[in-house]
Amino acid sequence: FLRRHVARLHESEMGDLLEAIQPEQRRQLVSLLGDDFDLAALTEVDEAIRLDIVEHMPNDQIAAALGEMDSDDAVYILEDLDQEDQEEILSKLPFTERIRLRRSLDYPESTAGRRMQTEFVAVPPFWTIGQTIDYLREDADLPESFSQIFVIDPTFRLLGAIDLDRVLRTSRNTKIEAIMRETNHPIPAEMDQEEAAQLFEQYDLLSAAVVDENGRLVGVLTIDDVVDVIQEEAEEDLMRLGGVGDEELSDKTIETVRSRAPWLLVNLLTAFLAASVISLFEATIEEIVALAVLMPIVAGMGGNAGSQTMTVTVRALATRDLDIHNAWRVVRREAGVGLLHGVAFGIVIGCVAALWFHDVNIGGVIAVAMLINMCAAALAGITIPMLLDRAGADPAVSSSVFVTAVTDIVGFFAFLGLATWWFAIR
Amino acid sequence: FLRRHVARLHESEMGDLLEAIQPEQRRQLVSLLGDDFDLAALTEVDEAIRLDIVEHMPNDQIAAALGEMDSDDAVYILEDLDQEDQEEILSKLPFTERIRLRRSLDYPESTAGRRMQTEFVAVPPFWTIGQTIDYLREDADLPESFSQIFVIDPTFRLLGAIDLDRVLRTSRNTKIEAIMRETNHPIPAEMDQEEAAQLFEQYDLLSAAVVDENGRLVGVLTIDDVVDVIQEEAEEDLMRLGGVGDEELSDKTIETVRSRAPWLLVNLLTAFLAASVISLFEATIEEIVALAVLMPIVAGMGGNAGSQTMTVTVRALATRDLDIHNAWRVVRREAGVGLLHGVAFGIVIGCVAALWFHDVNIGGVIAVAMLINMCAAALAGITIPMLLDRAGADPAVSSSVFVTAVTDIVGFFAFLGLATWWFAIR
Ligand SMILES: [Mg+2]
Ligand SMILES: [Mg+2]
Ligand SMILES: [Mg+2]
Ligand SMILES: [Mg+2]
Ligand SMILES: [Mg+2]
Ligand SMILES: [Mg+2]
Ligand SMILES: [Mg+2]
Ligand SMILES: [Mg+2]
Ligand SMILES: [Mg+2]
Ligand SMILES: [Mg+2]
Ligand SMILES: [Mg+2]
Ligand SMILES: [Mg+2]
Ligand SMILES: [Mg+2]
Repeated sequence: FLRRHVARLHESEMGDLLEAIQPEQRRQLVSLLGDDFDLAALTEVDEAIRLDIVEHMPNDQIAAALGEMDSDDAVYILEDLDQEDQEEILSKLPFTERIRLRRSLDYPESTAGRRMQTEFVAVPPFWTIGQTIDYLREDADLPESFSQIFVIDPTFRLLGAIDLDRVLRTSRNTKIEAIMRETNHPIPAEMDQEEAAQLFEQYDLLSAAVVDENGRLVGVLTIDDVVDVIQEEAEEDLMRLGGVGDEELSDKTIETVRSRAPWLLVNLLTAFLAASVISLFEATIEEIVALAVLMPIVAGMGGNAGSQTMTVTVRALATRDLDIHNAWRVVRREAGVGLLHGVAFGIVIGCVAALWFHDVNIGGVIAVAMLINMCAAALAGITIPMLLDRAGADPAVSSSVFVTAVTDIVGFFAFLGLATWWFAIR
Repeated sequence: FLRRHVARLHESEMGDLLEAIQPEQRRQLVSLLGDDFDLAALTEVDEAIRLDIVEHMPNDQIAAALGEMDSDDAVYILEDLDQEDQEEILSKLPFTERIRLRRSLDYPESTAGRRMQTEFVAVPPFWTIGQTIDYLREDADLPESFSQIFVIDPTFRLLGAIDLDRVLRTSRNTKIEAIMRETNHPIPAEMDQEEAAQLFEQYDLLSAAVVDENGRLVGVLTIDDVVDVIQEEAEEDLMRLGGVGDEELSDKTIETVRSRAPWLLVNLLTAFLAASVISLFEATIEEIVALAVLMPIVAGMGGNAGSQTMTVTVRALATRDLDIHNAWRVVRREAGVGLLHGVAFGIVIGCVAALWFHDVNIGGVIAVAMLINMCAAALAGITIPMLLDRAGADPAVSSSVFVTAVTDIVGFFAFLGLATWWFAIR
């Protein structure tokens, strides 16, 4: 029954099934399926689950299964194993497979070289379309699926590429070199996967050649894996802006605590900094308690406005929409937005506060403080991510800590400071 | 010069160029290029720029250019025009083109039907591979590029599909029906584009048939447009969590103010709600000013912890990783995380506060308040997005307002309430 139904699932459905069931059942299912278990399903599950399953499988079976898979999926499973297991499994593979996987593993994580598959179709430029089609009909050792054919010289240097629909439309006796596209946006193996994904997006590629430093074709990057990269990178930015690291939904409580606590700790430091700003004005607050009631409004509104600007900036930096050419225009716009918001919300909040506490002075003070903090929020929201980006840091990671710190400190200082000064001279 | 260099740019490079230059130069460039201007570049620019360029082009030229384009790109340009312009341009198109574009435009925005292209290759099941290849070599009216061939019956009902690499590997006299895949994950035209994108991701599709309610093939959705959908949807979630709507980087100051102000206004209401909670305890604060200094720490830490949980939840809901099967487990985990963070940070903050103000009571009160607020933050962070999702609302849009409202109100209430009670009974 199992073999009939479960083994026929698509690898991603199998992955979902593995994620849904208990660890015990998982191992039982995998050992029951035996050789029918498609290891490609492991590329669709969380890392912790993948490691757990692989550790409970005999290395012989893993090696046999990896030999059957596309190299990119094999690398995806191998890369998270510890050095020892990796070596043992690799040593059980045939020579050529081993060399190919080693080469991919030698490229740093998150590069095109690590994500590429080393199976591809390449032909010499002097072949005709007819020869090429005959070759494809006869050769058994083709990749599982492909969407273009590469053209190479005898030293494997990349000359061009042809999409399959072009091959099908062309008559049998046309020469390959007559219809190949010369530039196919070849991707250097060391290129970051995020940059490679941007090329795919910009030029609507289905696959792209990956070349080494000598321009030799070493693999192919395919859109389905690039889609995963795009998802990962978007998720990374979203999570980091929310103050969350590389956690997965299947993590245990204690792992989650450990991954989130550091960020809370950093925020705690800035919270104490803001508190110490407030403590400078204890005497004023003791005299006018209304200030304590109203001060979180000034800080909070600034924080929200700052995080709006920051979100837009971080996203625009990630998509490369924001660069030195338009930076100045966007900074000016954000400053304008901050000013207008400051005036508008300053007036609203000032009126409400004045009516609430029957005191025009409080209304005036909070209005001016709002104006100051909204401008500070806009400037912090745009300059902090841009400076972090310039400094080579990921603006998604730490921008929100700094922006909130600025809006809290400026907010409390402006409001309480102005109040102290105004009520003293009045 | 212009014709030679600019007209040869890839449509996306042309799009980048158009976005970089001034509105005046933009219109000049477009009119200088005349018929050499590839309207496909307009699918790569912000909506405001697209509208501006289209409005300054003669409708005849637009109609001529749209006739040449893939229908999905033509629809992308047409959909944002006002009814009148749309009608005029459509009326200048040949009959079949007009019908095709109308049909796409009749499907609601953000559906597969709106995003599909109506050019595709379809053959009957009884043809041989040889016949198919000959047809592809001869027919001039093929789509610009394609990655699979659909198989249909005489009434256009979808029977199956074949990837091009499969066609190339198979001998000429094999029948189409012998090698076609039966299920090709056909996408109903009314399906939301986000759902369609998830199918592409899950099954690693390059293109997919779009069918109407009778199972008739009406178009094809391709991965390059799906990649744009994935980007858009990820961007949407990121922006909405940051309290930003559908703005674009090229928006003017006043448009930006108008799009961001509503969210700030909502936040202002919750800020006043939190302030009114504080005002309940004015008497206590007047007596012990340290409370005013410390209260933002309790509220702020709760807010940060809540937004961590909320970010993870919103993302997991968007990717469908979180559903009724594992909801209970994740809720339990988040509650555990909140409890542990509450105990840990409660102790740290309690000690620091006790030392700072030389008062063990203040330390104890803030520690307990932190514990309460961290638990409230965890529960709000996970239940609010889940409830919004259940209610059919987009959890990314409004979760953060609600979560911050909860952590502010619970934070102030717990800390000031506990303090009032403790110092009264002491
Ligand atoms: Mg999954
Ligand atoms: Mg991995
Ligand atoms: Mg990265
Ligand atoms: Mg694109
Ligand atoms: Mg395009
Ligand atoms: Mg792959
Ligand atoms: Mg990134
Ligand atoms: Mg549009
Ligand atoms: Mg949507
Ligand atoms: Mg996939
Ligand atoms: Mg895959
Ligand atoms: Mg398209
Ligand atoms: Mg969404």
